[in-house]
Amino acid sequence: MYEGVVQDLIDELGRLPGVGPKSAQRIAFHLLASDPQDIGRLREVLGKVAEGVRFCEVCGNVSEAERCRICNDVRRDSSLICVVEEPKDVLAVERTREFRGRYHVLGGALDPLSGVGPDQLRIKDLLTRIGAEEVTEVIIATDPNTEGEATATYLVRMLRDFPGLNVTRLASGLPMGGDLEFADELTLGRALSGRRAL
Amino acid sequence: MYEGVVQDLIDELGRLPGVGPKSAQRIAFHLLASDPQDIGRLREVLGKVAEGVRFCEVCGNVSEAERCRICNDVRRDSSLICVVEEPKDVLAVERTREFRGRYHVLGGALDPLSGVGPDQLRIKDLLTRIGAEEVTEVIIATDPNTEGEATATYLVRMLRDFPGLNVTRLASGLPMGGDLEFADELTLGRALSGRRAL
Repeated sequence: MYEGVVQDLIDELGRLPGVGPKSAQRIAFHLLASDPQDIGRLREVLGKVAEGVRFCEVCGNVSEAERCRICNDVRRDSSLICVVEEPKDVLAVERTREFRGRYHVLGGALDPLSGVGPDQLRIKDLLTRIGAEEVTEVIIATDPNTEGEATATYLVRMLRDFPGLNVTRLASGLPMGGDLEFADELTLGRALSGRRAL
Repeated sequence: MYEGVVQDLIDELGRLPGVGPKSAQRIAFHLLASDPQDIGRLREVLGKVAEGVRFCEVCGNVSEAERCRICNDVRRDSSLICVVEEPKDVLAVERTREFRGRYHVLGGALDPLSGVGPDQLRIKDLLTRIGAEEVTEVIIATDPNTEGEATATYLVRMLRDFPGLNVTRLASGLPMGGDLEFADELTLGRALSGRRAL
């Protein structure tokens, strides 16, 4: 519709999730009128992302160094691991301020139809970690939807063999079929304090 | 909230219009999981935009060359000029397929409170153009809101001195207080065919 680079920009922006044609056009014309320095900052950070973002070698969360801030924090209870699907779920649990343990980010949930089996998730790393560290409880905080529930069930089966290990699941209180990241702090806090043994 | 480059990316995306914190996070994690080539294409086009986008030296629309496709098209009626605020308004009028003249893009509307006076818009270029080309009608197609109406009134005053020039305004049919770019094709087409003399 537009000529040259403007249309290219609208096309590229329109590929982003949640950005429709009208939004893409609006963002494009905003950028056309922007300070080149602002565009430069966006380009620079995109360049860093394209080079690859670092993940914590212990928990799998996004990280600046080999280990993330949470895994490096000696005040966090290392006997308690909260297993989540994505880095954004770590943020959601952190916002409740009710959890002082550590995390394990699976990188998704079991979804055989999309080709995500146990080997595509960081499940082996979790088992190694539980074997090596003195972990007493694993809280399974996958999303309360089909894939998350299936992942929780699978994890319970894998974790049954560790003697003395409590495996718990976030309490009801979270609406089923929803996404963990969109839960409000209070609901998620209640679900955390009311977690039940599996 | 996140560490390093991920948070930087979310911050930069959150500065774009219509992108809230949740959308910025969603786009950021989409990009983290994207092919570096896709990110590269977005970066490349942003680089071109930062270097400066070219505008048609005649009408002020975005253009690949010195003159845009419409100004270069000999089949377009050069005696008819449609004056719009922004390049996206050219696209809106083009979609009606009812206009075969040329355009003049002002680059905004009069808005003294934001420091946009007649000198900030391409009004002098319009007067020069009408003096040089054999223009018989100028259709004022600024947005039907306060700034657009004020701009239309100002343009009528400036164009009154050209002998034999018809100055028209898009017909009612467009909802007042709205934006021209969001009008549907039918409404905008009706407004174009029912334009009234000022």
